[in-house]
Amino acid sequence: MTTDRTIERTWPDPEVAAELSALRRAAPLTHCITNLVADNFTANALLAVGASPAMVIAPEEAPGFATIAHALLLNVGTITQADAQAMRLAAAAARHAGKPWVLDPVGAGALPWRTAVVAELLDQRPAIVRGNASEILAVAGAAGGGKGVDSTAGSGEALPRAKDLAARLGAVVAVSGATDFVTDGEQVVAIPGGNALVTRVTATGCALGAIMAAFAGTLGSPLRAAVAASVLYKEAASRAGKVARGPGSFAVAFLDELSRVGVEG
Amino acid sequence: MTTDRTIERTWPDPEVAAELSALRRAAPLTHCITNLVADNFTANALLAVGASPAMVIAPEEAPGFATIAHALLLNVGTITQADAQAMRLAAAAARHAGKPWVLDPVGAGALPWRTAVVAELLDQRPAIVRGNASEILAVAGAAGGGKGVDSTAGSGEALPRAKDLAARLGAVVAVSGATDFVTDGEQVVAIPGGNALVTRVTATGCALGAIMAAFAGTLGSPLRAAVAASVLYKEAASRAGKVARGPGSFAVAFLDELSRVGVEG
Amino acid sequence: MTTDRTIERTWPDPEVAAELSALRRAAPLTHCITNLVADNFTANALLAVGASPAMVIAPEEAPGFATIAHALLLNVGTITQADAQAMRLAAAAARHAGKPWVLDPVGAGALPWRTAVVAELLDQRPAIVRGNASEILAVAGAAGGGKGVDSTAGSGEALPRAKDLAARLGAVVAVSGATDFVTDGEQVVAIPGGNALVTRVTATGCALGAIMAAFAGTLGSPLRAAVAASVLYKEAASRAGKVARGPGSFAVAFLDELSRVGVEG
Repeated sequence: MTTDRTIERTWPDPEVAAELSALRRAAPLTHCITNLVADNFTANALLAVGASPAMVIAPEEAPGFATIAHALLLNVGTITQADAQAMRLAAAAARHAGKPWVLDPVGAGALPWRTAVVAELLDQRPAIVRGNASEILAVAGAAGGGKGVDSTAGSGEALPRAKDLAARLGAVVAVSGATDFVTDGEQVVAIPGGNALVTRVTATGCALGAIMAAFAGTLGSPLRAAVAASVLYKEAASRAGKVARGPGSFAVAFLDELSRVGVEG
Repeated sequence: MTTDRTIERTWPDPEVAAELSALRRAAPLTHCITNLVADNFTANALLAVGASPAMVIAPEEAPGFATIAHALLLNVGTITQADAQAMRLAAAAARHAGKPWVLDPVGAGALPWRTAVVAELLDQRPAIVRGNASEILAVAGAAGGGKGVDSTAGSGEALPRAKDLAARLGAVVAVSGATDFVTDGEQVVAIPGGNALVTRVTATGCALGAIMAAFAGTLGSPLRAAVAASVLYKEAASRAGKVARGPGSFAVAFLDELSRVGVEG
Repeated sequence: MTTDRTIERTWPDPEVAAELSALRRAAPLTHCITNLVADNFTANALLAVGASPAMVIAPEEAPGFATIAHALLLNVGTITQADAQAMRLAAAAARHAGKPWVLDPVGAGALPWRTAVVAELLDQRPAIVRGNASEILAVAGAAGGGKGVDSTAGSGEALPRAKDLAARLGAVVAVSGATDFVTDGEQVVAIPGGNALVTRVTATGCALGAIMAAFAGTLGSPLRAAVAASVLYKEAASRAGKVARGPGSFAVAFLDELSRVGVEG
């Protein structure tokens, strides 16, 4: 599914290594309004990478905090009306403050109400939209409709619509899968590798979106941010897969490796 | 406490092995509205077993999703008014769509408000009610009243009331404890074994209810579903107990083993 | 930063050992209204230590349950309006029932709305206020203002204001950091040790507040409760640090060690 314009990136990669060092020096304050399944794992993944997570979800606090934080992640996985209100306010505040924000449209397509909320949030100009193939197809207005929150399409199948969506939004679109694709509508970067056990650990995709936000809050470029996060993620997953006995030990090793990639002597 | 009518089931068990293979082939979409402590562990346990979890909790989405999913779990552990509303709608939708649903009445008896919500939910005809002895006694209208969410009674003590409750509801009732009991009001199945460390890891009982829902969404019979989940659970706990140094490593090994039982060559 | 009046406590400590045995015998029912990131880890940490956790968060249930439980923890990490209402009711109920309660003012200073809620809750006379240096400075009315939920000040820097705050509130104040300080306004206890990886695992501070509540529900003295929890915590962290490869394996080993300190032969 890669085309002439697609380049491939994997660890070791000197540019990603430098970007990861920059993130660790900056320890970007990463504001997350995410789902109940992912809150803990996302915070731990951000801490492992070297970012400073803060889950601030009340409508009274979220918009103000979005202007202080380096970047914002909005994830609609277990969204309620109250969450939707906080997300609208936070996205608008981030946009007005010029802070990059990432949208993770979990379950878009399969669930009509949140699909409408996601469409509203897109008006606030996210820097990055990250999802699986079914979700990205749904956000692009194609017949998505995954099975609940898991994708029924491969990441490569969604790529043409992802490019169109990126061009239309003026945003970076990242499609997660066996190979991750990141595109700004022009360039396409493919990040292969990783380990299939990531699909057996909940919230790994959600945490990837948060790490993209942390990189976006550190680097100038959403494209470089999404690529750096994916390259780091695939490498950590690959290493964790070598020592795991199953999904429980994989999740533990994955957090360890997120903290080790680029640090080891 | 076992009687003439009680049969005992433990792993290895060819029927459970076949049912587990069927679950892994079907990867049943398992809709959970559960508690804040259990969301992550429940999703990971379902993924480890081979099911596809989705936590969809908004009243705007829960009833529609309950008709799409293969099965539904409702767990009242940290229930609020908003959750209660979503649960009422989801239970009614599942019932009308003919989808099996599981009720986990966490803390019933000790907490009057949720005990009343649980009584309401029972009208929607759950396929399975799963709890510890105190909770099942409370649901049965006996003087339950555990200590918070932990049981003050043994599973065997609750068995006579569990049988009556099952017969009255036309449902399967599962009582978790050192030995698990599953009954449809006529038959009683005892599942011994496991490891005491499950009582030192939060949300293990909650995740068991979710796995019962996944089996119920795969198999025709709630009785077989509840038995299969308990047999698998006791075996995974027993194996995890052999390698654990404490509750932290037990939880990790338990998820690993949930993914391995019935797969190993 | 320690003064003439400061004494230092570390494991092994016969008094803490006896207090830990008392906690394990009592298995105190510890009612927590905490944040979405910390719910699971807090419950697991309490179970590891030997307490009985219960997260009961609905305004319909929280005040009644606070009168039954042995102790209460309120943590404002992801507070919403609904949570604030439940916390006000629970704190008042605990106070009237004479049950000790612990306040963890996560993010106070950085976030104005919750800072006001925290000020209100202080009127209900917590037995212990636990936070990092920035949070304690903010609660004390000093120019706190940490970076999100992480501290920008060292624990020693906050000690003079912590002593004043403790004297003013008639409460124990615990400041977590590289060295923990616990003070009732007169005495100051310093608890050094631990391992820096605790700052790379989310919710470790939150769970410490819950363990202080469990000790407070067992022992007569909030000062002894806060000291015992900190000594236990530093020792478990130190041991976990010896076997961890990163934050993932540290969190697992830390829960194991919380269950082992004082038990080993």
